[in-house]
Amino acid sequence: MEGEISMRDVARLAGVSPMTVSRALSAPHLVRPETLEQVQSVIRTVGYVPNRVAASLSSRRTSLVGLIVPSLRNALYAQTIQGISDVLQRHGLHLIISDSGYSLEREEELIAAYLAQRPCGLILHNTVHTPAARQMLEAAGVPCVETGNLPPQPVDMAVSYSNHAAGRAMAGHLLSRGYRRFGFASLRIGTNERLRERRDGFLAGLRAAGITLDPAMVLEVDEGLEGGSRALAELLARDASVQALFLAGDVLAAGAIFECARRGLRVPQDIAIAGSDDNDLMQHMVPPVTTVRFPRYRIGVRSAELIVSRLEAEASGPVMEDLGFEVVQRGST
Amino acid sequence: MEGEISMRDVARLAGVSPMTVSRALSAPHLVRPETLEQVQSVIRTVGYVPNRVAASLSSRRTSLVGLIVPSLRNALYAQTIQGISDVLQRHGLHLIISDSGYSLEREEELIAAYLAQRPCGLILHNTVHTPAARQMLEAAGVPCVETGNLPPQPVDMAVSYSNHAAGRAMAGHLLSRGYRRFGFASLRIGTNERLRERRDGFLAGLRAAGITLDPAMVLEVDEGLEGGSRALAELLARDASVQALFLAGDVLAAGAIFECARRGLRVPQDIAIAGSDDNDLMQHMVPPVTTVRFPRYRIGVRSAELIVSRLEAEASGPVMEDLGFEVVQRGST
Repeated sequence: MEGEISMRDVARLAGVSPMTVSRALSAPHLVRPETLEQVQSVIRTVGYVPNRVAASLSSRRTSLVGLIVPSLRNALYAQTIQGISDVLQRHGLHLIISDSGYSLEREEELIAAYLAQRPCGLILHNTVHTPAARQMLEAAGVPCVETGNLPPQPVDMAVSYSNHAAGRAMAGHLLSRGYRRFGFASLRIGTNERLRERRDGFLAGLRAAGITLDPAMVLEVDEGLEGGSRALAELLARDASVQALFLAGDVLAAGAIFECARRGLRVPQDIAIAGSDDNDLMQHMVPPVTTVRFPRYRIGVRSAELIVSRLEAEASGPVMEDLGFEVVQRGST
Repeated sequence: MEGEISMRDVARLAGVSPMTVSRALSAPHLVRPETLEQVQSVIRTVGYVPNRVAASLSSRRTSLVGLIVPSLRNALYAQTIQGISDVLQRHGLHLIISDSGYSLEREEELIAAYLAQRPCGLILHNTVHTPAARQMLEAAGVPCVETGNLPPQPVDMAVSYSNHAAGRAMAGHLLSRGYRRFGFASLRIGTNERLRERRDGFLAGLRAAGITLDPAMVLEVDEGLEGGSRALAELLARDASVQALFLAGDVLAAGAIFECARRGLRVPQDIAIAGSDDNDLMQHMVPPVTTVRFPRYRIGVRSAELIVSRLEAEASGPVMEDLGFEVVQRGST
């Protein structure tokens, strides 16, 4: 029955409100002794455990786990957030969340602000940090998971996939389909190591087959479907005989395919288009889109599980988990 | 210069780490008196204010604002989350977030767990609650904003649009385009008052024009593009001469249009399709999709601003803000 019992069940059995149960766990001194005894008795009887981790935290730490993502708006991160939240909720931990807007300085500020909240864990969707941010993280000694890429030197723990390997695998896929003239576009790279590696992996994969991509065919565009539409227009303008595009980021590939429809271009007969990240849209486009699938929900789950393991003292020491990726072949290539 | 100064700037000017500045604000007793004086002096000089609200909180409340959304995965809520986060970050407040999975019982549990964290505010993307949840919220006296619908009796404050009016407006739009045979589909309604009102508003709008929709043409489907695809197939099977569909929820309309492309049906010549909620996808589909646009980012911003106003004691008493909606006419109708 363990794990099936909710706080609400405990409240019902003890004849009190869920609020009282919660308070009995988090601030027992605020609950009348008789009520506390009653709640604790029910908890012992039914084996209610969800708050085990939260309740075992040293009083120097709260039950808060801080998460910083590059953007809250982006559906990619939403899957990871859901995975993290699902695990934390089961363990009575709370997720505090904010976005860095892709800025390392902003990330540093948020880390400082989070640490002041005495969190029991931090999860960063980013593996490149300012020196000051890194120093704060190391000094704080709070369990910390980095994700989004496999960092050469993790601050503490890391769960991700290799963007370089993913880019390289997509080059291999397109080459195996017989294409020889390529174009590449991503979102603005800036300090975004994830995109940089995906691009470099793709170029390395082509080079390994003896193809050096003209720098004019490597583009950065703004996010969203509009970015994909512009990428298609621009790359076609630069090389009218380009055969295959790898649009590495967000929904760029879908935007490019919509643009093909508007121009009367057939995909993949006139031009092949591959994306990165799999979602509902990639599967339902006409034609459906070949893409690299990253296990984003699973990454959220594992990140949170690693924090929980640390808190339960079941694990210690550095962790680097490579959850891999998958090239999904569909009609667009 | 006010508002332009970051915690990082203060740290640089005071010759300390951002962590120390943060600690000086949140736990001054942990900072050496000389350092504290130095930081406070810089803060006074440059007029650093972002943490004004957080710093002014009574010690009985944390700087945490709790948010419960139906789903973290859904891109709709992502916009509201971003709006909330943008405002809270500016005021040095932190967002704790979780999802109810569309369950009122789960929402009740989360409210209890949040209240135990002593938040300075709560935002609920839901306006229907269990009696116990409502009672806890009223007893706690924490500033609370409900959103997603305009509730007849807000717990405290509410910021939304009217789903009923939106459904009715879409009926008016489709009637004005000359359509007379309709179909409707939404996600599973269950306890989701937002969808129920959107549907009822649509049916009321048709009735006002003398049209009573056959219950067989009112459908509930699963979420995602696949749901839209099934809605199209099912409604066409039930009435082959249906002229216009209102697919009220998520990306259902896009899924239906992809299904039309697979069936060789022309939109809107063979069948007109309208959606609800505007996003990048609706604008870029071929054809672009007529839809009801809700100000989701703005709703997040206003929700957070109302919490902040309460904390600054600039405002008190019930608030009900109707931020409205807009029918966006595009090629699909």
